Amino acid sequence: MVSIKDVAKDAGVSPQTVSNCINNPSIVKPATRKLVEASIERLNYTPNASARRLRTQRSNTIGIGIAPVSYSQVYDRFLHALVTEADANGIRVILYKTDSQQDEIRQFDALRARGDVDSFVLTDTTHDDPRLAWLHEHHQPFVLFGRPWGADDMNDPATPWVDVDGHYGIAEMTQHLILHGRKHIGFIGWPGVSGTGMDRYAGWRDAMLGARMAGPDELEQLYEEAKNDILSGQTACIALLDRRPDLDAIVCVSDTLAIGAATVLPSDTDIIITGFDDTVSARSMGLSSIAQPLIESARHIVRITQEQFVAPAAGRAGNGTGGATGSGGTSVNRKPDAIVSAPPTDDRHVLLKPTLVIR
Amino acid sequence: MVSIKDVAKDAGVSPQTVSNCINNPSIVKPATRKLVEASIERLNYTPNASARRLRTQRSNTIGIGIAPVSYSQVYDRFLHALVTEADANGIRVILYKTDSQQDEIRQFDALRARGDVDSFVLTDTTHDDPRLAWLHEHHQPFVLFGRPWGADDMNDPATPWVDVDGHYGIAEMTQHLILHGRKHIGFIGWPGVSGTGMDRYAGWRDAMLGARMAGPDELEQLYEEAKNDILSGQTACIALLDRRPDLDAIVCVSDTLAIGAATVLPSDTDIIITGFDDTVSARSMGLSSIAQPLIESARHIVRITQEQFVAPAAGRAGNGTGGATGSGGTSVNRKPDAIVSAPPTDDRHVLLKPTLVIR
Repeated sequence: MVSIKDVAKDAGVSPQTVSNCINNPSIVKPATRKLVEASIERLNYTPNASARRLRTQRSNTIGIGIAPVSYSQVYDRFLHALVTEADANGIRVILYKTDSQQDEIRQFDALRARGDVDSFVLTDTTHDDPRLAWLHEHHQPFVLFGRPWGADDMNDPATPWVDVDGHYGIAEMTQHLILHGRKHIGFIGWPGVSGTGMDRYAGWRDAMLGARMAGPDELEQLYEEAKNDILSGQTACIALLDRRPDLDAIVCVSDTLAIGAATVLPSDTDIIITGFDDTVSARSMGLSSIAQPLIESARHIVRITQEQFVAPAAGRAGNGTGGATGSGGTSVNRKPDAIVSAPPTDDRHVLLKPTLVIR
Repeated sequence: MVSIKDVAKDAGVSPQTVSNCINNPSIVKPATRKLVEASIERLNYTPNASARRLRTQRSNTIGIGIAPVSYSQVYDRFLHALVTEADANGIRVILYKTDSQQDEIRQFDALRARGDVDSFVLTDTTHDDPRLAWLHEHHQPFVLFGRPWGADDMNDPATPWVDVDGHYGIAEMTQHLILHGRKHIGFIGWPGVSGTGMDRYAGWRDAMLGARMAGPDELEQLYEEAKNDILSGQTACIALLDRRPDLDAIVCVSDTLAIGAATVLPSDTDIIITGFDDTVSARSMGLSSIAQPLIESARHIVRITQEQFVAPAAGRAGNGTGGATGSGGTSVNRKPDAIVSAPPTDDRHVLLKPTLVIR
């Protein structure tokens, strides 16, 4: 590898002068600078990243974890979007394993202690996420892809996040079906109290109630839960149609469940099935779906990260109640019928609208 | 962050002594070393990674790309396996975007010039892969996950690789079906001349011919091609059964195609459908499949990488004809009916056996 000494020798100047040309060019005479720049170009010299990082005490690197099983069908597409945006901004991305929230905290600790990472991107956020408590405690910059579900203050400046508005997407899809004459619209959702799942469920519920397509006591009949695999989608669809043979559409919380539902319908059916995430397989089957703006999400995440590089986030505001304490408070008990309202956003709290893909 | 000076002050020694304790402990008196080690522990000091990398001229980092669309349904699981093995060996993983082979070469160049990465892991290798030519030319260590399809010498020491034996997996699955009384076994494969696809196709063909379940001229009737999505799997299955209503099993090159095929069979069918990659959805539908040993693959890749850290690969052996020249030689014209034989392996060329998962 070409070193700063090689450039200095080639240009006939001192290594310090070369360094000045790179880091502080205004203090170098223009003629000298030209000489050095010519040598840099001739030798194809690139400042060593480790040396630069040591000098600046910044690694220009963000860290992101990958779980043994992806919670999202589009996680690999999100990773691609993130590394693409990082690349365009001269930022490197370190990928680390995260087998659990505690495992990820161990990674934070190790990467941070070695000065390897400036900021972390967290995904798959949960109620009372212990990772947030750790990051706040250690004044470690980070950005969430997903909202801090269960936080008292969604817009705590110390907890920047970017998310896609699942409530909006599912509500728009449901309204689209209603506008096109569908009257009995079921929903297949995920079990449990995942923030993302509840948010999407609420989109369907609010659209149905808002258009008076169902009374509050009818919603339960129109709703089935399913684990996120094709068989569970098939089973849920059969159960729904058993109970309500009059259904003319089923909105699903994911493409996987939509594919399951669609594959148990007779081929001459008129029932419309819709999914979420616009995957290749849903597309191939002609299913309408909802596309997340992953590139735009990544762009905001990288932007916030860069703002952190320049001006690190202030410490937690106020008494620090906004985040997660790992104490398992009452927020985990929120039921899917709780109202999830979209928080207002600012440039550190960005809620993006997904796009309907109608087929 | 705690610095070496803080440790020195705490231990009452010079920074050089602390540095010696870390990098060259044998030259420090045991009593002094104990003092310093106690301070290191008390202050929770970790040597700065950038400083260490600058000193050793090694980043202890491997780079791997991610494409806009994953060629493999298990790419995220492979990434998780790779970062897990890297983590266990103190190696970091940088993830970068790769939108094309030329784009990946640009990444090689940038990461290499900045000294950010010691070795690259390449996936989705193709015939006459221009990435290999570049890496060889620049004496840049790398490991393939996948074989150098089309290379004259699969065991060129300058081209280490780890791969999973798709031919073996599909042949074993076909033989398993034959042993259980299936007589008319179709195959749904990928179009084109991808090395991986051809290798799996050949596994089915060789098992069928070997067990005299079909003559060479009958194979074409038993074979359909399909793009890797569910609809294409459905279409291919219908076409196969149209032509050969006597089929009692269909081996598929992927789980996605198997799911497509399975969803167009009547629910009381006796036809067995099998897939490849043992995905959650195939599992949920009760389909037999073939599991790649991803963790073992990652382990070998990391091992070879570490051997490269210690002793960099020798230059290309002989006249360097083994790799890819990007000139589009005759090898790209190999047809799926060419015999693909498993090469012998050594510790830098590792062909792992996948596992049948029978349901």
